[in-house]
Amino acid sequence: MTDKNTQLTSTISEDNKLTLALTDIAIPQPSADEVVIRIEAAPLNPSDLAVMFSVANMTSASQSGSDVNPVITADVPAQFMPAVKTRVGKATPVGNEGAGTVVAAGSSPAAQALMGKTVAVIGGGTYRQYLAANVRSCLVLKDGTTAKEGASSFVNPLTALAMVATMRAEGHKAIIHAAAASNLGQMLNRICIADGVDLINIVRKTEQETLLRNMGAKYVVNSSSETFITDLTAAIIETGATIAFDPIGGGRLTSDILNCMEVAAARDMKEHSVYGSDTFKQVYIYGALNRGPISLNRNFGFAWGVNGFLLFNALGKLGTETVVAMRKRVADEITTTFASHYTHEVSLAEALQLASIASYGKQATGEKYLITPQKSN
Amino acid sequence: MTDKNTQLTSTISEDNKLTLALTDIAIPQPSADEVVIRIEAAPLNPSDLAVMFSVANMTSASQSGSDVNPVITADVPAQFMPAVKTRVGKATPVGNEGAGTVVAAGSSPAAQALMGKTVAVIGGGTYRQYLAANVRSCLVLKDGTTAKEGASSFVNPLTALAMVATMRAEGHKAIIHAAAASNLGQMLNRICIADGVDLINIVRKTEQETLLRNMGAKYVVNSSSETFITDLTAAIIETGATIAFDPIGGGRLTSDILNCMEVAAARDMKEHSVYGSDTFKQVYIYGALNRGPISLNRNFGFAWGVNGFLLFNALGKLGTETVVAMRKRVADEITTTFASHYTHEVSLAEALQLASIASYGKQATGEKYLITPQKSN
Repeated sequence: MTDKNTQLTSTISEDNKLTLALTDIAIPQPSADEVVIRIEAAPLNPSDLAVMFSVANMTSASQSGSDVNPVITADVPAQFMPAVKTRVGKATPVGNEGAGTVVAAGSSPAAQALMGKTVAVIGGGTYRQYLAANVRSCLVLKDGTTAKEGASSFVNPLTALAMVATMRAEGHKAIIHAAAASNLGQMLNRICIADGVDLINIVRKTEQETLLRNMGAKYVVNSSSETFITDLTAAIIETGATIAFDPIGGGRLTSDILNCMEVAAARDMKEHSVYGSDTFKQVYIYGALNRGPISLNRNFGFAWGVNGFLLFNALGKLGTETVVAMRKRVADEITTTFASHYTHEVSLAEALQLASIASYGKQATGEKYLITPQKSN
Repeated sequence: MTDKNTQLTSTISEDNKLTLALTDIAIPQPSADEVVIRIEAAPLNPSDLAVMFSVANMTSASQSGSDVNPVITADVPAQFMPAVKTRVGKATPVGNEGAGTVVAAGSSPAAQALMGKTVAVIGGGTYRQYLAANVRSCLVLKDGTTAKEGASSFVNPLTALAMVATMRAEGHKAIIHAAAASNLGQMLNRICIADGVDLINIVRKTEQETLLRNMGAKYVVNSSSETFITDLTAAIIETGATIAFDPIGGGRLTSDILNCMEVAAARDMKEHSVYGSDTFKQVYIYGALNRGPISLNRNFGFAWGVNGFLLFNALGKLGTETVVAMRKRVADEITTTFASHYTHEVSLAEALQLASIASYGKQATGEKYLITPQKSN
């Protein structure tokens, strides 16, 4: 255990500037219910980018400082400043999850039990070398699981599991997933195959279609294809899917999904109704890959819902027992069902290079960054 | 009881034509649980227009036949024909509700008990002289209530009551209503005043604002005003409204409402969150006065829902006991809380004049038609 601790922070200042920087901080002391984790791996998820970039215009980003201590600054458009006023002037730690080794533990038995273990952790700003965390925020990984394998144990695995659990809780029988070739989408595909749930994967590239089919996906439709609407409708007719999860939001995909669901449902109607079918159709929007307006062209009657979907709210609705079972499954299957793939591993300083930011800022499916804070620069 | 029975029907034919016509039919005989109602008054609601005009282009309408037996024809754009294929070739009776005198009753005690009573009725095509209806579709009006007073006993009163009941059932404490100067909006305003529920009325004209204020409305905001967003936000802050009902749909009003709710909710946040506030914000869309796309500009976080709202589904969720209490309240208060105002009374033949269609087809707030089928032409 070295005496160096550096954290990656994002700060918006009153002069409409965003600053990303590495700051030396003290190595924390654990309180009774806390452990100190040497963070060895932490993923860069879209939700991390939202904290990191906030409302800044990243095309204006410039780099200063040194190679080992880079500083990124970018402009925040004036009209967005009111929306972020509660974070102005505060250095916000970045990193929602990660994994590493417990190197110090508080006095409680629960904390002591984790000493020396490899754990995954949620919350707190994981883009640093040493993080103090409450034991309840930790998931003990099985012997032999590495920190890199366990780095993404919370956000994507629990979101994918929450989708399947929500489908069941709300009485649907098959799922549609958009941007389905993502790490999360691949997990969802494996869960659905294991659990016998029909899943319609929507992708926008042929290679993503191939990837998912090679992973055993039965239903894959390509939104770039001329036959997309027909293909999606046919898959809905075959599976009876009436719930969809979409991380894109902006544009007309949500509307297209609802319309295809309605066409499938209306097939069985003998009498015309001006209100459309009685079949309830639900789209949950769980991201904002497209920040533009969501455009709903209603040809889908009155039995429909479009809702924001946020992991912590969804877990709250599903209840503690379900969540405990989910966490156990994640730990048991982190190298199989919940395996993540990263295309880049970077140190904290490498994460703050303009070229890196331009790359992971695209949030392109198939490009995934892992931060390894112990890597020297 | 004459031997004449004429019904208003809407027919789409395979050659892409819509035909509205009056057809002579037999006076029905009631089965055991039915009564025959001499329909004396029936309102023209937006839901009736949806059946009547369907997907036809009414700007292409032309009139033929005679003055006492007019026939309206209009073009149905070819691209809409698949959506209505289950009604092609079928003469669809129009008229969702109405009121009149029971002139014949089936053998069951429940039916016999209605003999001679003035009743309101839901369903069946009320734009005719004589309608057979199950007793469960009838609401007995109090002695002294006229058919004209009771003609709108179901659609608007129950929708307004269902809005307040849904607000309570889903844990909200104040309501936003769009297009609030409508007959339905005026009922909702009276219910909310009586029940002590805060209601924010959104209108788009100064005279509508005056009308509602004169009826005791405390919160009225004008969407045509330059200060609309500020005014709406201030009213939300004052009332804590987190649920809205909107009959318009198309355009950006739903989005504006959600954004104003979020601004109000975010005032209390001490910490910035990229996910927005935890306050759940709901908009129910219960009509399609604007059939254009609903455009959602998300600045309202992830705790939100936009849903279709259909009276019968809402009543199903609220349960029989609540609905029975609602029906009783409607009968008790039909000339006060649930009073409707009509600007035009027309016979069946007068309803099928091009000039009438052009007038009620606008669905303008403040213009409301009542059909009186017993009126000779």
